[in-house]
Amino acid sequence: MDAALKSPPKAATRTIEVRMSLLEGNDRQAARNRRRFREAGICALNLVSSPGAGKTALLERTLSEFGRTTRCAAVVGDLATDNDARRLGRFGAPVRQITTGSACHLDAGMVARAVESLDLAGVRVLFIENVGNLVCPASFDLGESLRVVLLSCAEGEDKPLKYPPIFKSAHVVILTKMDVAGVLGFDRGAAAENIRRIAPQARLIELSARTGEGIAPWYELLGSPPGRA
Amino acid sequence: MDAALKSPPKAATRTIEVRMSLLEGNDRQAARNRRRFREAGICALNLVSSPGAGKTALLERTLSEFGRTTRCAAVVGDLATDNDARRLGRFGAPVRQITTGSACHLDAGMVARAVESLDLAGVRVLFIENVGNLVCPASFDLGESLRVVLLSCAEGEDKPLKYPPIFKSAHVVILTKMDVAGVLGFDRGAAAENIRRIAPQARLIELSARTGEGIAPWYELLGSPPGRA
Repeated sequence: MDAALKSPPKAATRTIEVRMSLLEGNDRQAARNRRRFREAGICALNLVSSPGAGKTALLERTLSEFGRTTRCAAVVGDLATDNDARRLGRFGAPVRQITTGSACHLDAGMVARAVESLDLAGVRVLFIENVGNLVCPASFDLGESLRVVLLSCAEGEDKPLKYPPIFKSAHVVILTKMDVAGVLGFDRGAAAENIRRIAPQARLIELSARTGEGIAPWYELLGSPPGRA
Repeated sequence: MDAALKSPPKAATRTIEVRMSLLEGNDRQAARNRRRFREAGICALNLVSSPGAGKTALLERTLSEFGRTTRCAAVVGDLATDNDARRLGRFGAPVRQITTGSACHLDAGMVARAVESLDLAGVRVLFIENVGNLVCPASFDLGESLRVVLLSCAEGEDKPLKYPPIFKSAHVVILTKMDVAGVLGFDRGAAAENIRRIAPQARLIELSARTGEGIAPWYELLGSPPGRA
Protein backbone atom coordinates (compact mmCIF):
# COMPACT_ATOMS: atom_id res chain seq x y z
CA MET A 1 0.00 0.00 0.00
CA ASP A 2 3.02 2.26 0.22
CA ALA A 3 2.67 2.47 -3.51
CA ALA A 4 -0.09 4.95 -2.80
CA LEU A 5 2.65 7.43 -2.04
CA LYS A 6 3.20 7.56 -5.79
CA SER A 7 -0.48 8.39 -6.51
CA PRO A 8 -1.78 11.90 -7.25
CA PRO A 9 -1.52 14.31 -4.29
CA LYS A 10 -5.08 14.12 -2.99
CA ALA A 11 -5.33 10.34 -2.90
CA ALA A 12 -1.83 10.10 -1.49
CA THR A 13 -2.64 12.43 1.41
CA ARG A 14 -5.71 10.45 2.27
CA THR A 15 -3.84 7.17 2.16
CA ILE A 16 -1.00 8.45 4.29
CA GLU A 17 -3.50 9.56 6.92
CA VAL A 18 -5.11 6.15 7.05
CA ARG A 19 -1.74 4.44 7.11
CA MET A 20 -0.47 6.62 9.95
CA SER A 21 -3.61 6.00 11.96
CA LEU A 22 -3.28 2.27 11.35
CA LEU A 23 0.37 2.28 12.42
CA GLU A 24 -0.35 4.39 15.52
CA GLY A 25 -3.10 2.00 16.54
CA ASN A 26 -0.71 -0.88 15.99
CA ASP A 27 2.02 0.78 18.02
CA ARG A 28 -0.34 1.28 20.97
CA GLN A 29 -1.32 -2.40 20.93
CA ALA A 30 2.34 -3.39 20.53
CA ALA A 31 3.19 -1.38 23.67
CA ARG A 32 0.46 -3.26 25.56
CA ASN A 33 1.80 -6.60 24.28
CA ARG A 34 5.35 -5.64 25.25
CA ARG A 35 4.27 -4.70 28.78
CA ARG A 36 2.35 -7.91 29.13
CA PHE A 37 5.27 -10.05 27.97
CA ARG A 38 7.71 -8.20 30.23
CA GLU A 39 5.47 -8.56 33.29
CA ALA A 40 5.20 -12.29 32.62
CA GLY A 41 8.99 -12.62 32.20
CA ILE A 42 8.58 -13.71 28.60
CA CYS A 43 11.08 -12.92 25.86
CA ALA A 44 9.04 -12.55 22.66
CA LEU A 45 10.78 -12.96 19.30
CA ASN A 46 9.32 -11.79 15.99
CA LEU A 47 10.74 -14.04 13.26
CA VAL A 48 10.55 -12.51 9.79
CA SER A 49 11.89 -13.69 6.44
CA SER A 50 11.00 -14.48 2.85
CA PRO A 51 8.72 -17.48 2.33
CA GLY A 52 10.67 -20.69 2.73
CA ALA A 53 13.74 -19.24 4.48
CA GLY A 54 13.36 -21.84 7.22
CA LYS A 55 11.54 -20.17 10.10
CA THR A 56 9.43 -23.24 10.87
CA ALA A 57 12.36 -25.62 10.46
CA LEU A 58 14.41 -23.56 12.93
CA LEU A 59 11.53 -23.56 15.41
CA GLU A 60 11.05 -27.32 15.05
CA ARG A 61 14.65 -27.96 16.06
CA THR A 62 14.52 -25.25 18.74
CA LEU A 63 11.37 -26.64 20.38
CA SER A 64 12.74 -30.19 20.26
CA GLU A 65 16.13 -29.25 21.80
CA PHE A 66 16.08 -25.90 23.64
CA GLY A 67 12.38 -26.40 24.46
CA ARG A 68 13.18 -29.53 26.48
CA THR A 69 14.61 -27.44 29.32
CA THR A 70 13.02 -24.03 28.80
CA ARG A 71 9.28 -23.67 28.38
CA CYS A 72 8.45 -22.08 25.02
CA ALA A 73 5.29 -21.15 23.10
CA ALA A 74 4.68 -20.19 19.51
CA VAL A 75 2.28 -18.16 17.41
CA VAL A 76 2.55 -18.72 13.65
CA GLY A 77 1.11 -16.60 10.86
CA ASP A 78 0.21 -17.68 7.33
CA LEU A 79 -2.24 -16.55 4.68
CA ALA A 80 -3.72 -20.05 4.60
CA THR A 81 -3.37 -23.53 6.18
CA ASP A 82 -2.50 -24.55 9.72
CA ASN A 83 0.45 -26.63 8.50
CA ASP A 84 2.99 -24.78 10.61
CA ALA A 85 1.00 -25.01 13.83
CA ARG A 86 0.66 -28.74 13.24
CA ARG A 87 4.41 -29.06 12.59
CA LEU A 88 5.24 -27.16 15.78
CA GLY A 89 2.48 -28.71 17.86
CA ARG A 90 4.33 -32.04 18.02
CA PHE A 91 6.78 -30.85 20.67
CA GLY A 92 4.43 -30.21 23.57
CA ALA A 93 4.66 -26.42 23.54
CA PRO A 94 1.49 -24.31 23.31
CA VAL A 95 1.06 -23.21 19.67
CA ARG A 96 -1.53 -21.05 17.88
CA GLN A 97 -1.96 -20.53 14.15
CA ILE A 98 -3.04 -17.13 12.85
CA THR A 99 -4.54 -17.36 9.37
CA THR A 100 -4.44 -13.92 7.78
CA GLY A 101 -6.41 -14.53 4.58
CA SER A 102 -4.78 -12.02 2.25
CA ALA A 103 -2.93 -9.92 4.83
CA CYS A 104 0.78 -9.69 4.14
CA HIS A 105 2.00 -9.40 7.76
CA LEU A 106 0.99 -9.96 11.37
CA ASP A 107 -0.05 -6.96 13.45
CA ALA A 108 -0.02 -6.42 17.20
CA GLY A 109 -3.78 -7.01 17.54
CA MET A 110 -3.59 -10.41 15.86
CA VAL A 111 -0.80 -11.41 18.23
CA ALA A 112 -2.73 -10.15 21.29
CA ARG A 113 -5.79 -12.20 20.31
CA ALA A 114 -3.75 -15.32 19.59
CA VAL A 115 -1.85 -15.07 22.87
CA GLU A 116 -5.16 -14.63 24.74
CA SER A 117 -5.96 -18.30 24.17
CA LEU A 118 -2.47 -19.65 24.90
CA ASP A 119 -1.44 -21.10 28.25
CA LEU A 120 1.62 -18.97 29.00
CA ALA A 121 2.21 -20.28 32.55
CA GLY A 122 5.94 -20.83 32.95
CA VAL A 123 6.71 -19.78 29.38
CA ARG A 124 10.02 -17.92 29.06
CA VAL A 125 10.29 -17.64 25.27
CA LEU A 126 7.46 -16.85 22.85
CA PHE A 127 8.22 -17.29 19.17
CA ILE A 128 6.06 -15.25 16.81
CA GLU A 129 6.54 -16.59 13.28
CA ASN A 130 5.43 -13.84 10.90
CA VAL A 131 3.98 -14.24 7.40
CA GLY A 132 6.77 -14.93 4.89
CA ASN A 133 7.48 -11.46 3.51
CA LEU A 134 10.68 -9.43 3.52
CA VAL A 135 8.91 -6.08 3.08
CA CYS A 136 5.64 -5.39 4.91
CA PRO A 137 6.35 -6.87 8.38
CA ALA A 138 9.09 -4.23 8.79
CA SER A 139 6.49 -1.54 9.62
CA PHE A 140 4.55 -3.51 12.22
CA ASP A 141 5.84 -3.73 15.78
CA LEU A 142 4.27 -6.75 17.48
CA GLY A 143 5.55 -5.93 20.96
CA GLU A 144 8.50 -8.27 20.54
CA SER A 145 11.67 -8.11 22.62
CA LEU A 146 13.79 -9.11 19.64
CA ARG A 147 13.21 -8.95 15.91
CA VAL A 148 14.98 -11.80 14.15
CA VAL A 149 15.39 -11.66 10.37
CA LEU A 150 16.22 -14.96 8.67
CA LEU A 151 17.93 -15.03 5.29
CA SER A 152 18.38 -18.34 3.52
CA CYS A 153 21.63 -18.71 1.66
CA ALA A 154 19.51 -19.85 -1.30
CA GLU A 155 18.21 -16.28 -1.60
CA GLY A 156 21.58 -14.73 -2.41
CA GLU A 157 24.03 -12.37 -0.74
CA ASP A 158 22.44 -9.14 -2.01
CA LYS A 159 19.11 -9.24 -0.21
CA PRO A 160 20.09 -6.92 2.70
CA LEU A 161 20.91 -4.24 0.10
CA LYS A 162 17.66 -4.77 -1.78
CA TYR A 163 15.33 -5.00 1.25
CA PRO A 164 16.97 -2.57 3.68
CA PRO A 165 14.01 -1.57 5.93
CA ILE A 166 13.56 -5.00 7.45
CA PHE A 167 17.29 -5.56 7.96
CA LYS A 168 17.68 -2.11 9.53
CA SER A 169 14.99 -3.07 12.06
CA ALA A 170 16.64 -6.38 13.04
CA HIS A 171 18.22 -7.18 16.40
CA VAL A 172 19.45 -10.51 15.04
CA VAL A 173 20.06 -11.75 11.50
CA ILE A 174 20.28 -15.49 10.94
CA LEU A 175 21.78 -16.96 7.79
CA THR A 176 19.96 -20.27 7.33
CA LYS A 177 20.51 -23.48 5.32
CA MET A 178 24.25 -23.08 5.69
CA ASP A 179 24.68 -26.84 5.10
CA VAL A 180 23.96 -26.23 1.41
CA ALA A 181 25.82 -22.91 1.10
CA GLY A 182 28.63 -24.54 -0.86
CA VAL A 183 26.36 -26.29 -3.34
CA LEU A 184 24.48 -23.04 -3.92
CA GLY A 185 27.68 -21.07 -4.48
CA PHE A 186 26.77 -18.79 -1.59
CA ASP A 187 29.48 -16.27 -0.64
CA ARG A 188 29.10 -15.98 3.15
CA GLY A 189 31.73 -13.23 3.35
CA ALA A 190 29.87 -11.02 0.90
CA ALA A 191 26.57 -11.69 2.67
CA ALA A 192 28.06 -10.82 6.08
CA GLU A 193 29.52 -7.62 4.64
CA ASN A 194 26.14 -6.60 3.21
CA ILE A 195 24.42 -7.35 6.51
CA ARG A 196 26.98 -5.32 8.47
CA ARG A 197 26.63 -2.44 6.04
CA ILE A 198 22.82 -2.27 6.30
CA ALA A 199 22.34 -3.63 9.82
CA PRO A 200 25.49 -2.93 11.88
CA GLN A 201 23.37 -3.16 15.04
CA ALA A 202 22.36 -6.78 14.41
CA ARG A 203 23.95 -9.87 15.85
CA LEU A 204 24.78 -12.31 13.04
CA ILE A 205 24.28 -16.06 13.42
CA GLU A 206 24.96 -18.66 10.72
CA LEU A 207 23.35 -22.05 11.08
CA SER A 208 21.62 -25.02 9.52
CA ALA A 209 18.40 -26.14 11.14
CA ARG A 210 18.62 -29.40 9.20
CA THR A 211 22.05 -30.49 10.49
CA GLY A 212 22.18 -28.43 13.69
CA GLU A 213 25.49 -26.85 12.59
CA GLY A 214 25.96 -23.43 14.23
CA ILE A 215 22.86 -23.71 16.44
CA ALA A 216 24.65 -23.09 19.80
CA PRO A 217 24.82 -19.25 19.59
CA TRP A 218 21.08 -19.23 18.88
CA TYR A 219 20.33 -21.21 22.03
CA GLU A 220 22.69 -19.00 24.03
CA LEU A 221 20.81 -15.96 22.81
CA LEU A 222 17.48 -17.52 23.77
CA GLY A 223 18.83 -18.53 27.17
CA SER A 224 20.01 -15.04 28.08
CA PRO A 225 18.44 -12.56 25.70
CA PRO A 226 19.95 -9.07 25.70
CA GLY A 227 17.96 -6.62 27.83
CA ARG A 228 16.53 -9.24 30.19
CA ALA A 229 16.77 -8.10 33.79
CA MET B 1 -2.61 -3.22 4.72
CA ASP B 2 -5.32 -5.87 4.47
CA ALA B 3 -4.77 -6.25 8.16
CA ALA B 4 -6.93 -3.17 8.49
CA LEU B 5 -9.85 -5.48 7.84
CA LYS B 6 -9.36 -6.68 11.40
CA SER B 7 -9.59 -3.12 12.82
CA PRO B 8 -12.71 -1.64 14.42
CA PRO B 9 -15.59 -1.07 11.95
CA LYS B 10 -15.14 2.64 11.25
CA ALA B 11 -11.42 2.51 10.49
CA ALA B 12 -11.92 -0.66 8.48
CA THR B 13 -14.59 0.90 6.28
CA ARG B 14 -12.43 3.89 5.58
CA THR B 15 -9.45 1.72 4.71
CA ILE B 16 -11.44 -0.52 2.42
CA GLU B 17 -12.68 2.55 0.54
CA VAL B 18 -9.17 3.82 0.00
CA ARG B 19 -7.94 0.39 -0.99
CA MET B 20 -10.76 -0.08 -3.49
CA SER B 21 -10.14 3.32 -5.00
CA LEU B 22 -6.42 2.56 -5.25
CA LEU B 23 -7.09 -0.76 -6.95
CA GLU B 24 -9.64 0.74 -9.34
CA GLY B 25 -7.16 3.44 -10.33
CA ASN B 26 -4.54 0.75 -10.82
CA ASP B 27 -6.88 -1.37 -12.93
CA ARG B 28 -7.63 1.57 -15.22
CA GLN B 29 -3.92 2.21 -15.78
CA ALA B 30 -3.31 -1.52 -16.26
CA ALA B 31 -5.94 -1.55 -19.01
CA ARG B 32 -4.15 1.35 -20.72
CA ASN B 33 -0.82 -0.49 -20.43
CA ARG B 34 -2.35 -3.66 -21.83
CA ARG B 35 -3.81 -1.83 -24.82
CA ARG B 36 -0.50 -0.14 -25.48
CA PHE B 37 1.45 -3.41 -25.33
CA ARG B 38 -1.07 -5.17 -27.56
CA GLU B 39 -1.01 -2.41 -30.19
CA ALA B 40 2.78 -2.57 -30.26
CA GLY B 41 2.73 -6.37 -30.63
CA ILE B 42 4.51 -6.80 -27.30
CA CYS B 43 3.96 -9.73 -24.96
CA ALA B 44 4.44 -8.37 -21.42
CA LEU B 45 5.25 -10.78 -18.61
CA ASN B 46 4.88 -9.95 -14.93
CA LEU B 47 7.42 -12.07 -13.02
CA VAL B 48 6.59 -12.47 -9.34
CA SER B 49 8.19 -14.55 -6.59
CA SER B 50 9.74 -14.49 -3.14
CA PRO B 51 13.03 -12.61 -2.84
CA GLY B 52 15.85 -14.71 -4.25
CA ALA B 53 13.75 -17.22 -6.19
CA GLY B 54 15.82 -16.50 -9.27
CA LYS B 55 13.88 -13.99 -11.37
CA THR B 56 16.97 -12.04 -12.37
CA ALA B 57 19.03 -15.17 -12.99
CA LEU B 58 16.31 -16.49 -15.32
CA LEU B 59 16.20 -13.18 -17.17
CA GLU B 60 19.99 -13.08 -17.51
CA ARG B 61 19.99 -16.44 -19.28
CA THR B 62 16.89 -15.54 -21.28
CA LEU B 63 18.32 -12.25 -22.56
CA SER B 64 21.64 -13.90 -23.42
CA GLU B 65 20.03 -16.82 -25.33
CA PHE B 66 16.44 -16.12 -26.40
CA GLY B 67 17.22 -12.39 -26.63
CA ARG B 68 19.78 -13.01 -29.35
CA THR B 69 17.05 -13.66 -31.93
CA THR B 70 14.02 -11.93 -30.42
CA ARG B 71 14.20 -8.33 -29.24
CA CYS B 72 13.36 -8.09 -25.54
CA ALA B 73 13.19 -5.32 -22.92
CA ALA B 74 12.99 -5.39 -19.15
CA VAL B 75 11.69 -3.31 -16.27
CA VAL B 76 12.89 -4.38 -12.82
CA GLY B 77 11.50 -3.40 -9.43
CA ASP B 78 13.33 -3.33 -6.11
CA LEU B 79 13.01 -1.38 -2.89
CA ALA B 80 16.61 -0.24 -3.25
CA THR B 81 19.68 -0.54 -5.55
CA ASP B 82 19.88 -0.76 -9.33
CA ASN B 83 21.80 -4.04 -9.12
CA ASP B 84 19.29 -5.94 -11.23
CA ALA B 85 19.17 -3.35 -14.01
CA ARG B 86 22.96 -3.46 -14.14
CA ARG B 87 22.94 -7.26 -14.27
CA LEU B 88 20.40 -7.26 -17.10
CA GLY B 89 21.86 -4.25 -18.92
CA ARG B 90 24.85 -6.30 -20.09
CA PHE B 91 22.92 -8.04 -22.85
CA GLY B 92 22.04 -5.11 -25.07
CA ALA B 93 18.31 -5.04 -24.31
CA PRO B 94 16.69 -1.82 -23.06
CA VAL B 95 16.33 -2.06 -19.25
CA ARG B 96 14.86 0.27 -16.62
CA GLN B 97 15.11 -0.04 -12.84
CA ILE B 98 12.16 1.05 -10.69
CA THR B 99 13.21 1.76 -7.11
CA THR B 100 10.14 1.61 -4.91
CA GLY B 101 11.57 2.83 -1.58
CA SER B 102 9.36 0.98 0.86
CA ALA B 103 6.62 -0.13 -1.54
CA CYS B 104 6.06 -3.86 -1.52
CA HIS B 105 4.97 -4.30 -5.16
CA LEU B 106 4.95 -2.62 -8.56
CA ASP B 107 1.77 -0.93 -9.75
CA ALA B 108 0.55 -0.14 -13.25
CA GLY B 109 1.50 3.54 -13.00
CA MET B 110 5.12 2.76 -12.12
CA VAL B 111 5.32 0.43 -15.12
CA ALA B 112 3.76 3.03 -17.43
CA ARG B 113 6.29 5.65 -16.34
CA ALA B 114 9.24 3.27 -16.69
CA VAL B 115 8.14 2.12 -20.14
CA GLU B 116 7.78 5.76 -21.24
CA SER B 117 11.56 6.13 -21.29
CA LEU B 118 12.32 2.75 -22.91
CA ASP B 119 12.98 2.31 -26.62
CA LEU B 120 10.40 -0.35 -27.46
CA ALA B 121 10.95 -0.31 -31.23
CA GLY B 122 10.98 -3.90 -32.44
CA VAL B 123 10.52 -5.31 -28.93
CA ARG B 124 8.38 -8.45 -28.86
CA VAL B 125 8.77 -9.48 -25.22
CA LEU B 126 8.77 -7.14 -22.21
CA PHE B 127 9.80 -8.67 -18.90
CA ILE B 128 8.51 -6.88 -15.80
CA GLU B 129 10.40 -8.19 -12.77
CA ASN B 130 8.29 -7.37 -9.72
CA VAL B 131 9.51 -6.71 -6.17
CA GLY B 132 10.29 -10.00 -4.42
CA ASN B 133 7.08 -10.67 -2.50
CA LEU B 134 4.73 -13.63 -2.69
CA VAL B 135 1.75 -11.71 -1.25
CA CYS B 136 1.14 -8.10 -2.27
CA PRO B 137 1.86 -8.20 -6.04
CA ALA B 138 -1.12 -10.58 -6.40
CA SER B 139 -3.59 -7.66 -6.17
CA PHE B 140 -1.90 -5.39 -8.72
CA ASP B 141 -2.54 -5.93 -12.41
CA LEU B 142 0.29 -4.31 -14.38
CA GLY B 143 -1.31 -4.77 -17.80
CA GLU B 144 0.71 -7.91 -18.42
CA SER B 145 -0.21 -10.57 -20.97
CA LEU B 146 1.06 -13.34 -18.70
CA ARG B 147 1.66 -13.53 -14.98
CA VAL B 148 4.56 -15.84 -14.20
CA VAL B 149 5.06 -17.01 -10.61
CA LEU B 150 8.50 -18.43 -9.81
CA LEU B 151 8.98 -20.80 -6.89
CA SER B 152 12.48 -21.85 -5.95
CA CYS B 153 12.80 -25.45 -4.84
CA ALA B 154 14.71 -24.09 -1.83
CA GLU B 155 11.44 -22.58 -0.56
CA GLY B 156 9.67 -25.90 -0.08
CA GLU B 157 6.77 -27.75 -1.67
CA ASP B 158 4.05 -26.21 0.49
CA LYS B 159 4.22 -22.59 -0.63
CA PRO B 160 1.30 -22.77 -3.13
CA LEU B 161 -0.94 -23.88 -0.25
CA LYS B 162 0.31 -21.13 2.06
CA TYR B 163 0.26 -18.26 -0.47
CA PRO B 164 -2.76 -19.17 -2.61
CA PRO B 165 -3.79 -15.74 -4.02
CA ILE B 166 -0.68 -15.28 -6.11
CA PHE B 167 -0.67 -18.85 -7.40
CA LYS B 168 -4.37 -18.63 -8.28
CA SER B 169 -3.58 -15.57 -10.41
CA ALA B 170 -0.71 -17.24 -12.33
CA HIS B 171 -0.75 -18.16 -16.01
CA VAL B 172 2.58 -19.91 -15.61
CA VAL B 173 4.37 -21.34 -12.58
CA ILE B 174 8.10 -21.97 -12.85
CA LEU B 175 9.93 -24.20 -10.40
CA THR B 176 13.46 -22.78 -10.29
CA LYS B 177 16.90 -23.99 -9.11
CA MET B 178 16.00 -27.55 -10.10
CA ASP B 179 19.72 -28.38 -10.37
CA VAL B 180 19.89 -28.39 -6.56
CA ALA B 181 16.47 -29.99 -5.94
CA GLY B 182 18.09 -33.27 -4.91
CA VAL B 183 20.53 -31.72 -2.45
CA LEU B 184 17.70 -29.72 -0.88
CA GLY B 185 15.50 -32.82 -0.54
CA PHE B 186 12.84 -31.14 -2.67
CA ASP B 187 9.89 -33.37 -3.58
CA ARG B 188 8.94 -32.20 -7.09
CA GLY B 189 5.93 -34.50 -7.21
CA ALA B 190 4.45 -33.00 -4.05
CA ALA B 191 5.16 -29.47 -5.29
CA ALA B 192 3.52 -30.16 -8.67
CA GLU B 193 0.48 -31.62 -6.91
CA ASN B 194 0.16 -28.54 -4.69
CA ILE B 195 0.49 -26.24 -7.71
CA ARG B 196 -2.16 -28.17 -9.64
CA ARG B 197 -4.48 -28.09 -6.64
CA ILE B 198 -4.24 -24.30 -6.16
CA ALA B 199 -3.50 -23.24 -9.73
CA PRO B 200 -4.96 -25.83 -12.14
CA GLN B 201 -5.04 -23.14 -14.84
CA ALA B 202 -1.28 -22.57 -14.77
CA ARG B 203 1.27 -24.08 -17.11
CA LEU B 204 4.07 -25.66 -15.06
CA ILE B 205 7.72 -25.40 -16.10
CA GLU B 206 10.67 -26.83 -14.14
CA LEU B 207 14.12 -25.46 -14.90
CA SER B 208 17.50 -24.33 -13.68
CA ALA B 209 18.68 -20.94 -14.88
CA ARG B 210 22.18 -21.84 -13.72
CA THR B 211 22.60 -25.02 -15.82
CA GLY B 212 19.99 -24.32 -18.49
CA GLU B 213 18.25 -27.64 -17.72
CA GLY B 214 14.53 -27.48 -18.67
CA ILE B 215 14.79 -24.03 -20.30
CA ALA B 216 13.35 -25.03 -23.73
CA PRO B 217 9.63 -24.93 -22.77
CA TRP B 218 10.19 -21.43 -21.38
CA TYR B 219 11.63 -20.21 -24.68
CA GLU B 220 8.81 -21.93 -26.60
CA LEU B 221 6.30 -20.08 -24.45
CA LEU B 222 8.04 -16.77 -25.08
CA GLY B 223 8.25 -17.48 -28.81
CA SER B 224 4.55 -18.16 -29.20
CA PRO B 225 2.75 -16.91 -26.10
CA PRO B 226 -0.86 -18.08 -25.69
CA GLY B 227 -3.38 -15.51 -26.86
CA ARG B 228 -1.10 -13.84 -29.39
CA ALA B 229 -2.92 -13.26 -32.69
